[in-house]
Amino acid sequence: MPETNPRILLARRPKGAPAPDDFRFEEAPLPAPAEGEVLVRHRFLSLDPYQRGRMDDAKSYAKPVELGTVMECQAVGQVQASRDPRFREGDWVLGGYGWQTFSVRPGKALIPIDPKEAPPSTALGVLGMPGLTAWVGLTDIGEPKAGETLVVSAASGAVGQVVGQLGRIAGARVVGIAGGAAKCAFVRDELGFDAAVDHRGDLKAQLDATCPNGVDVYWENVGGAVQEAVFPRFRDFGRMVMCGMIAQYNTVAGVAAGPSAPPGPNLGPVVRKRLRIQGFIVSDTGWQRYGRFRAEMLGHIAAGKLRWKEEVVKGLANAPQAFMGLLEGRNFGKLVIALD
Amino acid sequence: MPETNPRILLARRPKGAPAPDDFRFEEAPLPAPAEGEVLVRHRFLSLDPYQRGRMDDAKSYAKPVELGTVMECQAVGQVQASRDPRFREGDWVLGGYGWQTFSVRPGKALIPIDPKEAPPSTALGVLGMPGLTAWVGLTDIGEPKAGETLVVSAASGAVGQVVGQLGRIAGARVVGIAGGAAKCAFVRDELGFDAAVDHRGDLKAQLDATCPNGVDVYWENVGGAVQEAVFPRFRDFGRMVMCGMIAQYNTVAGVAAGPSAPPGPNLGPVVRKRLRIQGFIVSDTGWQRYGRFRAEMLGHIAAGKLRWKEEVVKGLANAPQAFMGLLEGRNFGKLVIALD
Repeated sequence: MPETNPRILLARRPKGAPAPDDFRFEEAPLPAPAEGEVLVRHRFLSLDPYQRGRMDDAKSYAKPVELGTVMECQAVGQVQASRDPRFREGDWVLGGYGWQTFSVRPGKALIPIDPKEAPPSTALGVLGMPGLTAWVGLTDIGEPKAGETLVVSAASGAVGQVVGQLGRIAGARVVGIAGGAAKCAFVRDELGFDAAVDHRGDLKAQLDATCPNGVDVYWENVGGAVQEAVFPRFRDFGRMVMCGMIAQYNTVAGVAAGPSAPPGPNLGPVVRKRLRIQGFIVSDTGWQRYGRFRAEMLGHIAAGKLRWKEEVVKGLANAPQAFMGLLEGRNFGKLVIALD
Repeated sequence: MPETNPRILLARRPKGAPAPDDFRFEEAPLPAPAEGEVLVRHRFLSLDPYQRGRMDDAKSYAKPVELGTVMECQAVGQVQASRDPRFREGDWVLGGYGWQTFSVRPGKALIPIDPKEAPPSTALGVLGMPGLTAWVGLTDIGEPKAGETLVVSAASGAVGQVVGQLGRIAGARVVGIAGGAAKCAFVRDELGFDAAVDHRGDLKAQLDATCPNGVDVYWENVGGAVQEAVFPRFRDFGRMVMCGMIAQYNTVAGVAAGPSAPPGPNLGPVVRKRLRIQGFIVSDTGWQRYGRFRAEMLGHIAAGKLRWKEEVVKGLANAPQAFMGLLEGRNFGKLVIALD
């Protein structure tokens, strides 16, 4: 059994985009589980855009990561030692914590995973928080209906992939926005979106061409120029599902929108078109519905209606670089770090 | 019986604020009802901010008034001649049409009014479209709950008055925003709002003082600087009921928000705080629920929980001037034109 817990700490709060020196690698002592706790050996770490928000010392829906403590993330792993009778050594679980090799967690905070149902890493993607995010936002806010047009930004990303496919299953026409020809081809040809548009091109003209009747549901992952292009194209009674605005996570504003935040759309059309713009955070109500979500998603997978793409980066030491790339859209699919 | 129908036409589309020459007075021939129709002699005309939108030739939820035709409004009046067996001469009705002295309407488009229940002019205010607007927006979107803070802009206006009082009835703490000391005193002392703030003063400081815990529901009638002051003060799960943005009705933008529209708030906080920003138009679903609305409102009036204030301007010829004042906030209470 190893003696140490290699991990990555938040060393400094980033100014704008994170830099390598904002992170620090260390080998901490191996933690020991107390009664009711479990020592989890992480096999996959989940890197997600929300973690950028945790690096700032700003008021948000969750507390920031303290300086000098381990960077936040969800992890999938195997039980290394258990003091909770529900778990045995070798069991796969979702619920490890942090950019590190091991974590000690209360047994009641862990969700058992059956690796025969789906590869364990999917518990961080299509069957995990990103997939649940897509499901909750569409169920509670977007509500795409047959014949409606659903536009998804960051369409090849962990959440966007699932949003678009669930929209198709609901009978909507789905247009994905992604960066570059490869991602566009992926969402159109492999995920089965009706169309894909490249935000590096003339986005407004492409939206006019692919959404001739306008937009009924817009899934907002991005903000910035993409939001500006989509917003005027809403049809009456359109819904804008506010999941994130990654384009500004590296500004001082982030989702906190301080004085430096760029302005948003004039809200006059919200009245005229009876629009609904609504934000949500998956952790508010999502995990309470995880069982129903997982059953539905496994059904879609079994029916061949739901695919996914991961970008797997090997080695804990590569997590900072991979995370910086995620914020710039350099990943292709759900980004996970694989540990030995 | 009179021989003519004095009326006011839209002579020219306004550029910015309407001017006297945008309107034209004429004496048209008295119209005659066909089978199933009713000739209504108007007693009260309703002047409302939405009529500004009808003066522009812009795409909106309703068609613009054609040049050279009568200005749009709702009217309350008495039946002058009826070819619908449900109506007799002298009956009071809601459903006359236009800035004119008489209109011919299908009997089925008229709602009978009992002048013993409430003064007939209230069918244009607290018991009419503005009151119904308040009721629909709070029922469907705002949903103020006991202990929550509801902020109402244009609080002394036809809609705002009712919004605030219904919020109080629901148990919310209600803060009204109005222009000037007299309007603020009215909403606080006569309507019973918990506090009133004057948008001509330091609005942000006054909001901090009167909403120490932030804002749960914001009723948006105004836009512009008022919206800018309220928006950052939302609490988590806040709702913004988008009823109108009168501050920009006289710009080219209006609620249509063309390229000249001023920007709105950065939408980052919509994610972080899980806000809901939703627009509505009362005519979509309101009149179908008019019976339930009217019964509830008459109950509140009988219980002494609902008051109203009208500004009554006498004479059709004064309608243009009164309407121009309405768009600048110079009216005090629901604006109606009284005809002889």
